[in-house]
Amino acid sequence: MKNDRQQLEQLRQSIDECDEALLALLKKRQGFVEQLVAHKQAAGDAVFVPEREQAIFQRLTDRADFYGLDFELVRDILQRIMRDSYARQARIQRHISPQNQDHQPATQPHQQPQSAKSICVIGGKGQLGGFFVEQFRLSGHSVCVLDRNDWPNADQLLANKDLVLIAVPMAETETTIEQLSGLSDHTLLADITSVKHQPLQHMLKVHSGPVIGLHPMFGPGQSHMARQLLLYTQGRQPEASDWLLQQFRQWGCYTESIDAEAHDTLMGTVQALRHFVTFVTGWQLMANGQSLDELLRVSSPIYRLELSLIGRLFAQQPELYVDIWLKSEQAPSVISAFGDCFKQAEGWINKGERTQLINQFKQIADYFSHSNADFFQQSDTLLEAFRERIQSS
Amino acid sequence: MKNDRQQLEQLRQSIDECDEALLALLKKRQGFVEQLVAHKQAAGDAVFVPEREQAIFQRLTDRADFYGLDFELVRDILQRIMRDSYARQARIQRHISPQNQDHQPATQPHQQPQSAKSICVIGGKGQLGGFFVEQFRLSGHSVCVLDRNDWPNADQLLANKDLVLIAVPMAETETTIEQLSGLSDHTLLADITSVKHQPLQHMLKVHSGPVIGLHPMFGPGQSHMARQLLLYTQGRQPEASDWLLQQFRQWGCYTESIDAEAHDTLMGTVQALRHFVTFVTGWQLMANGQSLDELLRVSSPIYRLELSLIGRLFAQQPELYVDIWLKSEQAPSVISAFGDCFKQAEGWINKGERTQLINQFKQIADYFSHSNADFFQQSDTLLEAFRERIQSS
Repeated sequence: MKNDRQQLEQLRQSIDECDEALLALLKKRQGFVEQLVAHKQAAGDAVFVPEREQAIFQRLTDRADFYGLDFELVRDILQRIMRDSYARQARIQRHISPQNQDHQPATQPHQQPQSAKSICVIGGKGQLGGFFVEQFRLSGHSVCVLDRNDWPNADQLLANKDLVLIAVPMAETETTIEQLSGLSDHTLLADITSVKHQPLQHMLKVHSGPVIGLHPMFGPGQSHMARQLLLYTQGRQPEASDWLLQQFRQWGCYTESIDAEAHDTLMGTVQALRHFVTFVTGWQLMANGQSLDELLRVSSPIYRLELSLIGRLFAQQPELYVDIWLKSEQAPSVISAFGDCFKQAEGWINKGERTQLINQFKQIADYFSHSNADFFQQSDTLLEAFRERIQSS
Repeated sequence: MKNDRQQLEQLRQSIDECDEALLALLKKRQGFVEQLVAHKQAAGDAVFVPEREQAIFQRLTDRADFYGLDFELVRDILQRIMRDSYARQARIQRHISPQNQDHQPATQPHQQPQSAKSICVIGGKGQLGGFFVEQFRLSGHSVCVLDRNDWPNADQLLANKDLVLIAVPMAETETTIEQLSGLSDHTLLADITSVKHQPLQHMLKVHSGPVIGLHPMFGPGQSHMARQLLLYTQGRQPEASDWLLQQFRQWGCYTESIDAEAHDTLMGTVQALRHFVTFVTGWQLMANGQSLDELLRVSSPIYRLELSLIGRLFAQQPELYVDIWLKSEQAPSVISAFGDCFKQAEGWINKGERTQLINQFKQIADYFSHSNADFFQQSDTLLEAFRERIQSS
């Protein structure tokens, strides 16, 4: 029996030694990656290269097989290590760059002088605007900011720019565009509003030069843009925005072109309705006098995850969401359509119509089964990761 | 320039070598863990020991610090490795256990003969029922199954059991309980229905021995129970269920006691309303003729995650959900309350009442800010992990 205990202790010690070796290895890898990034930055190369990542994973599939390891295990660990690399790179860059110095290029520009652009970000002291100001500077562009109080100097700030980027709150987009009639002919005018049709039409009317509508599908709380999604709608002279889209890709973004009206229709569902349902869900919990902590105590991981997604909404600025509901032309009709389905299903429940409910469920399941989405199975792994996270913290 | 290329190539090779060493290390660790698990199983010890895990993470906090590594990186990687261990252990156990042989104990029982129990699982050929049959057998208990066609032999199958576990579909729970009036006095009667008050009252009426209500907050698609949540409601003679709760804890479950009526009230929100809103959301997408693939193309990671949670619901049996809506006494009132909030907010949007919406938003945000939940920040990391998953697959 005592021998057994000793053997158990020895095994535990061996496992601890493996973990120690793992840490040393992570540190060593980090050193090589930092050298690699320094090289890339000096050469102006993209830090995130999907093809290089894919090549690494392709090779690891074979190697995992060789060792008899689960490929998903190897992939998840490598992805986690790479994520750490991107975050570290972003921190290192920030540390190097001059803080709070407007109108100054970064000290470590990645751009060759001839490709550096002259940019004005309207609303560049806002959260997302400020994020782009920083990113443009880190990439060696010359950036100035036009803030609320700077309109008296607008002519000077906007003159002769390669890019004027509108990054003001949604409610101020229209009045901002109205003041941009005097831009230089070669200036590319762009916005990052969450609706695209109206602002794009408005920009095309006010400015006769190149125009593009952008919709970054991410918030300012990011340390980097690797793997983020940027939607864009061409307005006029698409060739004039090539460098800008290329810059986003160099930052690691995926870019997707979309028609302005199709964009707004999709966003009626993707943003307006979805956030609205989340809003009402939070409201109902509050109205019900439900204790969140008691709810959490008895919640499955999937519900804790859903609660955290609800809480995420309410941790942000109300205006962001309220203005999407009020500005989206599609919002009233999709919200009303949701309300109709809700009423009908509620009626079935109150009348105990089990067969109706089951048949409707099957129809919707059929609709979902026709998608190419292969990530339904992946939610299991994701939920397991989430369970580990909430219970170990 | 050529020298530069060479240096870049050398750095990439060094990184690849680190990755190769990482794989070898993972394999080595797996070997030690397998030996450790074999030891534990022979001794009948729990495979998942939260305290041992916590000790490992405590030590790693210091070591990560020593190496200048981000603790979250180290923690995430170790958790991923441990998850792989649990899944491997479950696979190894399954491989060892005899398949499809009813009434036979597993060949590798963990229990000492005196602690092995005699168990009948009613509905043990169903998904969740079958999962428990397997788990009980793997832990060395003697398990028989009472299926739909076995009622003629019920007296024999139910006689003298330590535990009779009801694991039938929700709609059949009542009629099943009615047939259990002849159980032995010492038999522990338990169910795993998603509502607790009515079934518990019913079991107490029919059976005069020990009674407990269980609600496993997980489905049958699990390979193991480590970190899962089991809710339980005591009915009669709680000491008679000590061994059962202890068994769940040995499997790695967290167990939480809850009053039957409080349980049902909470589940009105946690299950009935939540699944209902998901159901209506899926319905609206279908009714809208929305192409899921087009939606996915323009979706942020958080929306792809939400879509995958919706798809998850429709990948399951309709009866599971429809019967929760119809059997939950709380469902009609929470659904109606949600409908009221929805109508009021919809009215504000249609009338353009921006201030009302913003004020309501702030009130709900205040309600959420009073929770102790610290996982709101964690959803960022989780979403980043999800983004990696969907884009690399």
